[in-house]
Amino acid sequence: MSILERTLSQIEELDGRAMEMARKRQDSLTKPQGSLGALEEISVQLAGIFGRPLPPLGKKVVIVMAGDHGVVEEGVSLFPQEVTPQMVLNFLRGGAAINVLARHAGAEVRVVDVGVAEDVVGEGLIVRKIRRGTANMAKGPAMSREEAVRALEVGIQVAEEEVEAGALYLATGDMGIGNTTPSSAITAVLTGTDPEEVTGRGTGLDDEGRKRKVEVIRRAIRVNQPDPEDPLDVLSKVGGLEIAGIAGVVLGAAARRRPVLVDGFISGAGALVAAALAPRSRDYMIASHLSQEAGHRAALGRLGLKPLIHADMRLGEGTGAALGFLLVEAAVKIISEMATFDEAGVSGPVS
Amino acid sequence: MSILERTLSQIEELDGRAMEMARKRQDSLTKPQGSLGALEEISVQLAGIFGRPLPPLGKKVVIVMAGDHGVVEEGVSLFPQEVTPQMVLNFLRGGAAINVLARHAGAEVRVVDVGVAEDVVGEGLIVRKIRRGTANMAKGPAMSREEAVRALEVGIQVAEEEVEAGALYLATGDMGIGNTTPSSAITAVLTGTDPEEVTGRGTGLDDEGRKRKVEVIRRAIRVNQPDPEDPLDVLSKVGGLEIAGIAGVVLGAAARRRPVLVDGFISGAGALVAAALAPRSRDYMIASHLSQEAGHRAALGRLGLKPLIHADMRLGEGTGAALGFLLVEAAVKIISEMATFDEAGVSGPVS
Repeated sequence: MSILERTLSQIEELDGRAMEMARKRQDSLTKPQGSLGALEEISVQLAGIFGRPLPPLGKKVVIVMAGDHGVVEEGVSLFPQEVTPQMVLNFLRGGAAINVLARHAGAEVRVVDVGVAEDVVGEGLIVRKIRRGTANMAKGPAMSREEAVRALEVGIQVAEEEVEAGALYLATGDMGIGNTTPSSAITAVLTGTDPEEVTGRGTGLDDEGRKRKVEVIRRAIRVNQPDPEDPLDVLSKVGGLEIAGIAGVVLGAAARRRPVLVDGFISGAGALVAAALAPRSRDYMIASHLSQEAGHRAALGRLGLKPLIHADMRLGEGTGAALGFLLVEAAVKIISEMATFDEAGVSGPVS
Repeated sequence: MSILERTLSQIEELDGRAMEMARKRQDSLTKPQGSLGALEEISVQLAGIFGRPLPPLGKKVVIVMAGDHGVVEEGVSLFPQEVTPQMVLNFLRGGAAINVLARHAGAEVRVVDVGVAEDVVGEGLIVRKIRRGTANMAKGPAMSREEAVRALEVGIQVAEEEVEAGALYLATGDMGIGNTTPSSAITAVLTGTDPEEVTGRGTGLDDEGRKRKVEVIRRAIRVNQPDPEDPLDVLSKVGGLEIAGIAGVVLGAAARRRPVLVDGFISGAGALVAAALAPRSRDYMIASHLSQEAGHRAALGRLGLKPLIHADMRLGEGTGAALGFLLVEAAVKIISEMATFDEAGVSGPVS
């Protein structure tokens, strides 16, 4: 059995009994029932994931998957491809937005080279390069099916290593110049939406640039004919190595019963692939924020996830997910630390 | 000159030069311009408030205003009025949601009795009671104009005291059984919206209860004829003592050049009153979250504020604002700690 098959077989249902106990406790706390909305729902979800009515707090890790995209030769990005390795080094030195926000949230950052075009050398970099960037999907498959599976398995293994090393909460992040293009393609195919509706400006394209990007995505879908019923076919033909890695992180987290904070649009595309491979993995996902990228809403809608933060962010890297950790921890503290009506001597509703 | 008049005259424009420098710095950081959305905008706003391109981090205080409402005799709330003092004691003991979330955000909580019907005695309570709850606004004015001004001034003074004691960031919170009713009335009158559209379920009314609540609000507006052009008339006739206190906290923060995190629906009604008295006070407000209460969106729309967190919360107390502190601090750290393109050796956009 491959690592992927083994992982898919390990993803279990949430613990219904722990969830019921968590719900009961929420209803005993000094607030109107349901008045903390998503904080209550998340606490119940976490109870189900960890199998404990009072979910634990603990180590948080953002896993940033980096890869390049042959499709950049079509002029779909405002930034040159050299920025991918430059930003990887920035991550390792602690100067990027994800470093600042992860520190703020008390989370660690791991950076994985799953497919950067250049060789990157830097302390702390996890090198699991499957290939030097994808091929240009506008002309043929971005990668082979076997490469897509191997990139997925990188994500699974890194997630498992982090759980082995004590991580209780995982988050996904991405770096890869050009990666909103495959993310839009995946979202279009897996949600059955026209590319026009799920393609945004990426790092800052103007109207004409965005129009060209939509045409490139249409061409990639026409040339490759990805099968919407076969997520590995979609991932390999119009996907990306870091997107595959992200899907793997989600699956690895779910197989090890860990919640995974899903970042923005690129992570959303990875999560769509994960959910298509293992629908039950959705139960382990928490949507951190709603990206300004046009396709994110469609991806989250398909996943049935409601994003917590609406801040018009569109950076990726895991920045939204890092902020999401702060709200998830708030949910844990609410269920663990609040007084009950009985303890506080507060009257309940008039019946 | 009264405290209120003096405060209104002290609210100044933001520092345009500091904002321009902050914007320039944001554009030099290793991310596509604007890609951190609201985090960037908030950092620029804070620069303008504090008059420094790199706004400071520092002491954070949530001010919870508590008061009661004569209109509860119309059956507009699910909980009995005795819950107001019970919850005040819960706040003082640290067992309520606001305590948990403020601790999580590293913020302090102040609780002010500006109009609880019962006498409350508890360590740390700031007692500035203007009267023992409002009168039933469905039968006549909730309070006199003079009482409304005095409650406003309580808020101003508490905010000023906190700033004197070192607070850099303030947030508003509320406690008062029945207080969504006056909040809906204020929102309806000041935004010119039909009460039906801005009236929600409060702590959990069913359809019939909500319908009765809308009728009570219509009656209060018909009986009192509040003048939409006169915010003190609206506040005194169909408002509440803690809502006045919240409006005062907003004005006091703005007069002392401090940002104020506005919590949910009740705080939004207070902020509407503050903005009607001093339009410039809006520049000092940050909307923390979007409440599930029906009228909150209308209030924020009128204020021109975009809420950061969408979590279907509807508890009040300052719970959304406490979480908002975490995102505001993230904005400060982004502008202060991220590497620039030059520092990190990262290429800019292809031009």
